Amino acid sequence: MYWSRTLIPTARQAPADAQIASHQWMIRAGLVRQIAAGVYDWLPLGWRAMQKICAIIRQEMDATGAQELHLPALLPAQWWKQTGRYADYGPLLFKVKDRRDTEMILGPTHEECVTELVKAYVGSHKQLPLILYQIQGKFRDEARPRNGLLRVREFFMKDAYSFHSSAESLHETYQAMYHAYVRIFRRCGVSAVAVEAESGPIGGEASHEFICPCAAGEDVMVRSEDGAYAANLERAGRAIFAPLTLATAAAAPPAPLQRVPTPGAATMQQVGQMLGAPPQHMIKTLVFVAGKDAPRPWVLACVRGDHEVNEAKLRHVAGSVELAPAEPARAAGLIIGFVGPHAANTIPAQLVIDPDVLALPTAIAGGNEVDWHVKNFNWRHHLHPAAAQRAVVADIRNAVPGDRSPAGSPLTFSKGIELGHVFKLGTRYSQALGATYLDENQQAQAIIMGCYGIGPGRILVAALETLCDADGINWPMSIAPYQVVITPIQYEGRARQVADQLHAELVTRGVDVLLDDRDQRPGVKFKDADLIGIPLRVVLGEKGLAAGQAELKRRGEKGPVMLPLANLAAAVDERVRKCLAEATL
Amino acid sequence: MYWSRTLIPTARQAPADAQIASHQWMIRAGLVRQIAAGVYDWLPLGWRAMQKICAIIRQEMDATGAQELHLPALLPAQWWKQTGRYADYGPLLFKVKDRRDTEMILGPTHEECVTELVKAYVGSHKQLPLILYQIQGKFRDEARPRNGLLRVREFFMKDAYSFHSSAESLHETYQAMYHAYVRIFRRCGVSAVAVEAESGPIGGEASHEFICPCAAGEDVMVRSEDGAYAANLERAGRAIFAPLTLATAAAAPPAPLQRVPTPGAATMQQVGQMLGAPPQHMIKTLVFVAGKDAPRPWVLACVRGDHEVNEAKLRHVAGSVELAPAEPARAAGLIIGFVGPHAANTIPAQLVIDPDVLALPTAIAGGNEVDWHVKNFNWRHHLHPAAAQRAVVADIRNAVPGDRSPAGSPLTFSKGIELGHVFKLGTRYSQALGATYLDENQQAQAIIMGCYGIGPGRILVAALETLCDADGINWPMSIAPYQVVITPIQYEGRARQVADQLHAELVTRGVDVLLDDRDQRPGVKFKDADLIGIPLRVVLGEKGLAAGQAELKRRGEKGPVMLPLANLAAAVDERVRKCLAEATL
Repeated sequence: MYWSRTLIPTARQAPADAQIASHQWMIRAGLVRQIAAGVYDWLPLGWRAMQKICAIIRQEMDATGAQELHLPALLPAQWWKQTGRYADYGPLLFKVKDRRDTEMILGPTHEECVTELVKAYVGSHKQLPLILYQIQGKFRDEARPRNGLLRVREFFMKDAYSFHSSAESLHETYQAMYHAYVRIFRRCGVSAVAVEAESGPIGGEASHEFICPCAAGEDVMVRSEDGAYAANLERAGRAIFAPLTLATAAAAPPAPLQRVPTPGAATMQQVGQMLGAPPQHMIKTLVFVAGKDAPRPWVLACVRGDHEVNEAKLRHVAGSVELAPAEPARAAGLIIGFVGPHAANTIPAQLVIDPDVLALPTAIAGGNEVDWHVKNFNWRHHLHPAAAQRAVVADIRNAVPGDRSPAGSPLTFSKGIELGHVFKLGTRYSQALGATYLDENQQAQAIIMGCYGIGPGRILVAALETLCDADGINWPMSIAPYQVVITPIQYEGRARQVADQLHAELVTRGVDVLLDDRDQRPGVKFKDADLIGIPLRVVLGEKGLAAGQAELKRRGEKGPVMLPLANLAAAVDERVRKCLAEATL
Repeated sequence: MYWSRTLIPTARQAPADAQIASHQWMIRAGLVRQIAAGVYDWLPLGWRAMQKICAIIRQEMDATGAQELHLPALLPAQWWKQTGRYADYGPLLFKVKDRRDTEMILGPTHEECVTELVKAYVGSHKQLPLILYQIQGKFRDEARPRNGLLRVREFFMKDAYSFHSSAESLHETYQAMYHAYVRIFRRCGVSAVAVEAESGPIGGEASHEFICPCAAGEDVMVRSEDGAYAANLERAGRAIFAPLTLATAAAAPPAPLQRVPTPGAATMQQVGQMLGAPPQHMIKTLVFVAGKDAPRPWVLACVRGDHEVNEAKLRHVAGSVELAPAEPARAAGLIIGFVGPHAANTIPAQLVIDPDVLALPTAIAGGNEVDWHVKNFNWRHHLHPAAAQRAVVADIRNAVPGDRSPAGSPLTFSKGIELGHVFKLGTRYSQALGATYLDENQQAQAIIMGCYGIGPGRILVAALETLCDADGINWPMSIAPYQVVITPIQYEGRARQVADQLHAELVTRGVDVLLDDRDQRPGVKFKDADLIGIPLRVVLGEKGLAAGQAELKRRGEKGPVMLPLANLAAAVDERVRKCLAEATL
């Protein structure tokens, strides 16, 4: 391709709102253009990289035996109501009414649609297992689109779905997908760590996220120093070194609760400052409601003031997938923001207590009155026997630095970008939508499912976040929009002739080549080539040509090597193949 | 691919609502599944064919120098208001409000979006010409989705846009696109006739449609017997053999207008039956309003009772792109449904008269009163001089059988499916959106544009409509989901071994092969193979294998040929290449 015939709008400055590196380089190199909050045009250069990423994904998916199909973006809202996700997604769903007033949604993911498809056509265990996938635009009306392509409202996703008649078959496919994902990220040149993930309120049995470590990421990875444990923050467990029953809780000598005013204090930090105590000496009590149908019992989750309640863990302990923070208006008798554990003495709420907070011999707690807290709270003395009997002690907080893995190795915390997710769904969707197969005894059984997502745009973002330098992008050869850029110092005379010929020969050889034929100063050409990050650059200068040589430079490496003009195309081609082979090792 | 591992839900019956052949075969062969009116899942087999069609389109687009990109489906409604198409499209547009109440639309096409893109980045004539294209899902809320994939609400389109600084450059690209289209349709194995098309109310200077002749099509092609003329019905001109001025109109001896009651007669046919006269002796007068701003002048279009007004022709004559049928409520003094040409005597309306209706010496016309017509209408005697002076005579009706081409050759009419459209847009969008470039004199000029669309799904429909037989689909090799199906009579023993080996060897050779490993009777396997239309079938039977032979049969041909098992894969591969080569001739 000749540079002058394509559209590569490079820019010297990044827009002011581009805060993370990938966003800045993406705009400066002319990969994308924003047209609305979280909605982007893919320009030719960005789109070429995306197509290469998608081609790698397709190859690896096909190798697992997965079948590609394509489901529509417009989906009947009815299906989503049947599975309960219409409500769960809430304002994240884009809703469309058609001219007959039928409500449709724009698919943010396709579990319902693909389950309906399989329900329509799969009737027998002989048709299972079946793996289907697609690469498709998805829609999600994010509250705060941000960070370039990291959180957008229209984006590409590879979503695969598998269907099984046994847990063993699901596990086999889950493993195959897991390994395909490892190959995909490696081939795309981005590092990815597989971490245990929470299956979440949508049900399911096992799940791993693939996270690319980088500071700009929005996900937190928790890993043990011994390398044996890796999970996301939502999932990360910890070893417990604290009391596990109320009876074994350390307790200070009993003292009466002392009411202390804390007017206007909205956070633990503020309460602590007013009362001259650090948050780790305080009890944070959050109110949840469990179950789906009224009466929904109250759950009081208690953690130390400096800790965060982990809703996934709480959900497991409470034994209810339907667990949600209480809305202030509905928490009759519970003064949200000022609840203390002793509220369970007068309200039939279940206390769930984290071991770390149970280890406090005495603590500050909410006063169960607006603008009041209490001092001297003591687990052994200030809970009535009925409340204590209902109480459960369990790990319900996020892991923090200082914690150890369940096997006892210190945990480390780092940020990253979630690139993909594999997920054992079980029968959550097949049961809700009635997708069954007949087993060998002609009995109807709910189909067992898995789902597997990758964000190709996230792979691109991860490559930019981790591989750029001060001059711009440094694409892995496997996903570079062009593999080679030919830069004649002056596009005229002998240089033009050699450049044209090299371009033609590389095209014939199947090398993706860009020829910088612009009437620009050499400095501009070099700067742009570095900015858009083409892995190999062939410079054709007067001096070199006179000596029968061209300069070959790998982006990011220091010096160029000189190559003879004879067989130049073959030498460049060989170098491209070598780089590609390195990436797939 | 092994048949048992993919999803090919064949059916013995087509659904009752599938009226055209392509729709029936598409469902019976398991290519697609409908999930809502005009919204379809692409199943693996259909999607494979679509991907092959899209690959051919991409190759030919790339060969013209066009750059692929990808624009979003969610578009700011504001752009569409700026070009006036928000109103023009009306209920065809899917509208979405996001959580901030910003109005977006789902793109039915992308002229606005791509023009805004080019406006942002192209500033100089040096950056032109530029050709951009994408293959993408489009959305159109059709009033009556029907005919399978022929009229749907979510569909794929290849849309290309070109940008120029001169009419010559536009013409050059227009020609290049035209020829690329000819190659695309030929390579996909569908016949396509290029016909002149109307540029339509969205402006533009020249346009061709590519139409695949077939009875199920919704478009009408008009061609001259001498082969020199081809246009769509909207565009088709005709030679005129009738009076071209009021002064030269034949006229019967004058007679007074005679009022005749026609209660409840809503059509020309009904009026004719009541009055005992054929529609060709009657005057049909339709009321239009011209211009954009009030006062919008009335235009009365008169054609013979058996003819149809052609709005595009009328628009040219009236010299207004803003011409629309009058709404009854607004046509003050004009009794819509009962208007006669003599209404122009009392209302300052312009008469536009087709020569054929002017040739009637006396005729029945609307009576300008509800439920009344008049007899004895006579062009020379019943128009006042002022009305006659404002009148224009011109070809304003659709061509009909019996007409001749402008060069005098008889016109023939046939139906077809519109596969693609090339279009000289001119500056319609660049002016509305302010997309300019600086010319060599540093003067700002509106960018000159062209646009070029192809419906990949329409190509698939056309292939099915024109290439199926009584047993099912007969894919062109170039777009067949699989090129070869291996059918072992029994998938066991020696047949299984040969089948597996042939499958593996063909995969290695890059042949798309399907192995029917199902535990089914041979009759079912043969029927399904014919139904899904794989071009080449290799049958492995006991007798043949014993003789060291396999059967190779081309779908649609009578007898098979026997091939030796030695080098079987090479022989099959060669046959595939031969078929492919034939298609690209």
